Parts: sequence; structure tokens; C-alpha cells
Amino acid sequence: MLYEISEKVIRLENEGKKIIKFNLGDPDQPTPNEIVEAAYEAMKKGKTKYSSSVGEKTLREALADIHGVSADNVVITAGSKWAVFAIMYLLLKRGENVIIPTPHWTAYELTAKTLGVETKFLRTELESNWSIDPEKLDALIDDKTRLIVLNNPNNPTSKVQDDKTVKKIVRIADDHEVTILSDEVYSDISFVKAKSVLDFSENHIVVKSFSKTFAMTGWRVGYAIADKELINKIVKLNQITLTNIPVFIQEAALKALELRHEIIRMIREKYRKRADLACSILSKTDLKFSKPEAPFYLFPKCEGLDSERFAFELLDRGVAIAPGTSFGDYREHFRIALTVSDDEVEFGLKIISEALK
Amino acid sequence: MLYEISEKVIRLENEGKKIIKFNLGDPDQPTPNEIVEAAYEAMKKGKTKYSSSVGEKTLREALADIHGVSADNVVITAGSKWAVFAIMYLLLKRGENVIIPTPHWTAYELTAKTLGVETKFLRTELESNWSIDPEKLDALIDDKTRLIVLNNPNNPTSKVQDDKTVKKIVRIADDHEVTILSDEVYSDISFVKAKSVLDFSENHIVVKSFSKTFAMTGWRVGYAIADKELINKIVKLNQITLTNIPVFIQEAALKALELRHEIIRMIREKYRKRADLACSILSKTDLKFSKPEAPFYLFPKCEGLDSERFAFELLDRGVAIAPGTSFGDYREHFRIALTVSDDEVEFGLKIISEALK
Repeated sequence: MLYEISEKVIRLENEGKKIIKFNLGDPDQPTPNEIVEAAYEAMKKGKTKYSSSVGEKTLREALADIHGVSADNVVITAGSKWAVFAIMYLLLKRGENVIIPTPHWTAYELTAKTLGVETKFLRTELESNWSIDPEKLDALIDDKTRLIVLNNPNNPTSKVQDDKTVKKIVRIADDHEVTILSDEVYSDISFVKAKSVLDFSENHIVVKSFSKTFAMTGWRVGYAIADKELINKIVKLNQITLTNIPVFIQEAALKALELRHEIIRMIREKYRKRADLACSILSKTDLKFSKPEAPFYLFPKCEGLDSERFAFELLDRGVAIAPGTSFGDYREHFRIALTVSDDEVEFGLKIISEALK
Repeated sequence: MLYEISEKVIRLENEGKKIIKFNLGDPDQPTPNEIVEAAYEAMKKGKTKYSSSVGEKTLREALADIHGVSADNVVITAGSKWAVFAIMYLLLKRGENVIIPTPHWTAYELTAKTLGVETKFLRTELESNWSIDPEKLDALIDDKTRLIVLNNPNNPTSKVQDDKTVKKIVRIADDHEVTILSDEVYSDISFVKAKSVLDFSENHIVVKSFSKTFAMTGWRVGYAIADKELINKIVKLNQITLTNIPVFIQEAALKALELRHEIIRMIREKYRKRADLACSILSKTDLKFSKPEAPFYLFPKCEGLDSERFAFELLDRGVAIAPGTSFGDYREHFRIALTVSDDEVEFGLKIISEALK
């Protein structure tokens, strides 16, 4: 449903319609100019050729340095999404299952589905502040469980699981010898500190992206950190699918890393203020929601709401949102991505407030 | 083996070694400047955001126009390689088989293998000018055959199947209701006219790429032409894997199409001359080979040669080739990609000639 809405928004925009796009986590600021220039310089230097399926050495070494791992543990991917697909494709067999805490990013479930793998959902609730209950996780694991997909900070709730919870989740996974695929794409710009699974154990996999941290969504560049054996398998899959991420894009990503402290500070500050603005508007409605602990999302609840119908109604009023059903069994919720200008946030939230009356 | 050699060459180059790279079909000329500038302009205009998983409308319409199909039949992919993977992933089930004429591009077989699908090889030989025997194809099809992978002009032989043969292959496929996945990435720059399967029947799939025609290998942009149903399935797979091809890369591809007549003329002329040069050098050796009918490859044969050993020996002498075993059961053959400068062609072929003595 999420992707159908995205494609519909693109069609409407092609027809000249103006849409406030709360539906996509695509930062409204442009990619910083220095990053664009780095890509251009690389292109002009002829870095437009086939290259390594594991990624450029310089970029992998810079990432390894940041994460305190070896470059052999890093592979560059087409966004974190490709990393998630590749890892699930390579690790999961039919008959096995993957545990996904909900609400969850749409792609995890769809990927499991296309691979013919069973999904087991671990529900979290607004009423308990979206906390994952480690005991429930423990009870859900069976002898066919191969993977737990953690997304911390979470999309769509913008909730950060506290350190203790992450530590407990890691211990449970280690005890059961189940791998955690930890999607940490929002952690660098989180408003509160979010611990990585790698802070507690080396047995697990982290995927990250340049998309959100550096306003580089459309560049399609991310990476995975894993043991060498899995990295080599991803490389072999890359060889028969993507070949390589364009080298000029990897050079742009390298420039982004150089500038990361100032860019991260800027992005975090901007979205913290915007989250405050949105919360203050929504607190005047009957919507229930938790305060975001990371960019970019709000996942409010309206009792009795059919969010799919609501999404299409709002689209007619020029506002795109993502219905809660795109993230699991959350029909009364919807996701608002605060990745439009402050003016659009105010205007769009007003339309939503009125539509709810 | 092909990809192992590529990665080894990259490692050697990172160590500062100079290698004549006959191993990769990566044109030695840079991407034309106008194409680079088009990408840069698009980046500066902010075309760095998420976009459609089917591809940009303008690019799809331009391609549809060229191929005489509807834009609904076109999806933009990360090179033709991603199109091949996606199509095989979506169409083939375990227990089914795919027929691949040999020698064949490495990725087809590896993709079938990772998908757990059986491959049936249809051998062609230098001695019969690499012609596909339609009767043998007909005999090879059984009730589990789902796909025939045609690659015309062929990599590694640079042979173009004549019109009659293509027509017969299409008729056989139609009679058996088997789909042809026709990889036509070399057809636009072929020295002799290569017919498309779509010239004879609408039932089949064509994949193409900007890589070879426009010296855009590292940009990773190609496309598939297929019926709407399959296009929609590819789009759904793109949504959970690549999201989109960077829009600035699609804008560069659009610029390439605008300039296609002059670029194609230039590329074809350059490689025709270079093929003549290489043939004239190799005709002084004991190697047997057919004259290329398309860029970029020669696939000579040396009786009694173990081309894998030979490839590693040559690498020590600073020349990278691809052993024949990377393309099927062709141990006595090896592939030379004429995608290095004329000087390097002369120098590299001299080293090969001496190594063969």
C-alpha cells in the first residue's frame, strides 16, 4: 500500500498536482552541495567504469574506522534496502522464519514474502511506549527461527529502544544462536543515543544508509557490516545483480563521511525542531502519539480510524500519508513523515486535523 | 572465475601494478562529456530524491519510441544484469529449466544456480561459426523449460546470429510457449545488423543497457522490454530492492539517447578498426578464431590449452584475460576484450602470443 501511494503521488505530480508528501521519509533539504561536487569531480576524472562488487576500498576503510571493524567486514550496497534483501535472500530458507517486531518498515515483510519465508510478528504498542518485550521475543523463537529484524530507531514510530532492552534482545539472540539483522539507518541522527547491536555482540549484522543522514535518498548507497563469510556471499550476489555501486556515488559518500559531524548536527537540529512543531499542532487534536526520539516520523493513532480509506481521502485533499496497515496490523494508526518544509508541516497537519473531525 | 579475476585485478591495481585489462568489456573511452554534464545539471536541480521504481517517464517514453512499444512495456533497471536477475527470479521456479546457448555470458548460469534452477546448455562451436542449430534447440526443450536465454550479438564470441536463425528460434519458442529472454546489449553497436526477437514476435523479453553503447558501464543503467504483467512484477521487486535508479543517472541516460546516432557511429568505428588490428596480429599466431561481427570480444582457441592456468600465468605478466571456462565448457578458449587502447592491444597481444609459444 505504501508503494502504491508513492507511485500514485508521482503520477499526480506528473499531472501537475501539488501534494504535501508526508508519505515518504525523504528529507526536504537538498543533498549538500559539497557532496554533489564530489560526485561531479569523480565523474570528470573518469570514475564511471565497472568496479569492485564489494565497494571502493577508501569508502570501506572509512566506514570500518567509524564502526571499529575491519574493512573486510564492510560491503557497499544500493541503499540499506538492497542489503536487507541480499541478507534475507542469502540467509533464509523456505520453512524457516524471521521475527519482525511491529510496527515495521514495509520492505522486511514483503521481502520475506517474496522469499517464501514465514514471518512471526512481535507486537509493540503505543500504550506501552513501543517497547519491545524481551520475554515475548524469547517465547517467539523456535527451532526454525533464523533471523530477528531489529529497526532501532524505529520506522514508523521514531522510538529508540533503551540500552537495557537492546542488550537483552542481543543476549536472547545469542542464547538461541539466532542472528539479528539490525537496521540502524536512523541512529546517527537520533535525538537520543541509540545503541548498536554491535556494542553488545559481534555475532550480528548491521545495515546502514547514507540516505537519511546525508539527504542522499535517491543516490542509493548504503552498507552492511557482517562477518567475512556473509560479506563474501553478498559480494557474489552483487556480482550477478548490481555489479557495483557507481564509483562516483561512492566518492560522494566518502565526502559525506568527511563532513558528517556538521551535517548530522544540522539534520538533527532541524528535525528536532520540526518534531516539536508537529507535536504541538497534533496535541490540539484527539490523536494519540508518542514524542519522536529520532527523525522523521510520527505514528499517531485515532480510535476507530480506517487509515487506508483515510489515506485516499487525504490524497484528494492534496496530502499524502502512509496508512498504518503498511507497517503491520495498525489500521487505526498512520505515518506522517516530517520531511517537508515547516510551512507544509503546518498546512498539511491542519488539513489532517480538519479531515479527522 | 571471471569475477575472481576482476577482483584480483582491482587488488593488483590498488597495489600500484599496471595491468592490461583484456578481462572486462569496459570501453576504454570515457563517458561522453555531455552525458556527465547532464548528470551534474540534474544533481544541481535536486534530482537526488527517491523516485519511481519503474523509472522516469521521460526516459521510458524515449526508449518506447525507439523500440516501437508503449512506455508501459519499459522498466529502467540497474544495468541489464539486474534485469536478467529480476526476470529469472520472477519467472523461474525450482524444478524448471532454462536453455542457454554456449559459450554464454557468465551471469546467466550463476543466476540460474543461485535460484536453484536447472540449466540446459546448447553448444555452439567455432568450427561451425558459432551458429545456433534450431533443430538442436527444438530437441532440448521439454515440459519443464520456461526460458531460453539468447544473447545476440554474443558475448564472448562477438558472433551475430543471422536473421533466419533468429526467426527460427523465435518460432520454436512460440510453438513450445517458451519465453525468450533476449540480451541485446551489443546490438546497437554491432558491425552487422542484428535482428531483435521483437522483430518477429511480441511474446518475448528484451534487455538492453547503456553500458556498452555509451561507455557508461559504471553508471549501472539499463532496461527491460516486456509485457505489462512482467513489468509490474519487476517494479514490485525493484520496490523492495533498489527503490529506483538515481534520477540524475536516468537524466544522463536520456541525454545519451539524444546523442545516440553520433556516439554509436563513433564507438562502432573505433571498435571495428581495433578488431581489424587485433585480428591481423592474432592471424600470425596458431590461434583459431572467428572475426568479430560486433564489439568487443575475441574468443580464440588454442588446442590443448588450459585457459584457467593460462589466465593466471598471464596475470603475472601484467595481462588479464577471461578463461574460456567462464563461458561454459571451453577450456581451450579464452576471451580478449578489446576495450583497452590500441597501443595496449598491440602490446598485450604480443605478450599473449609469446606466452603461447
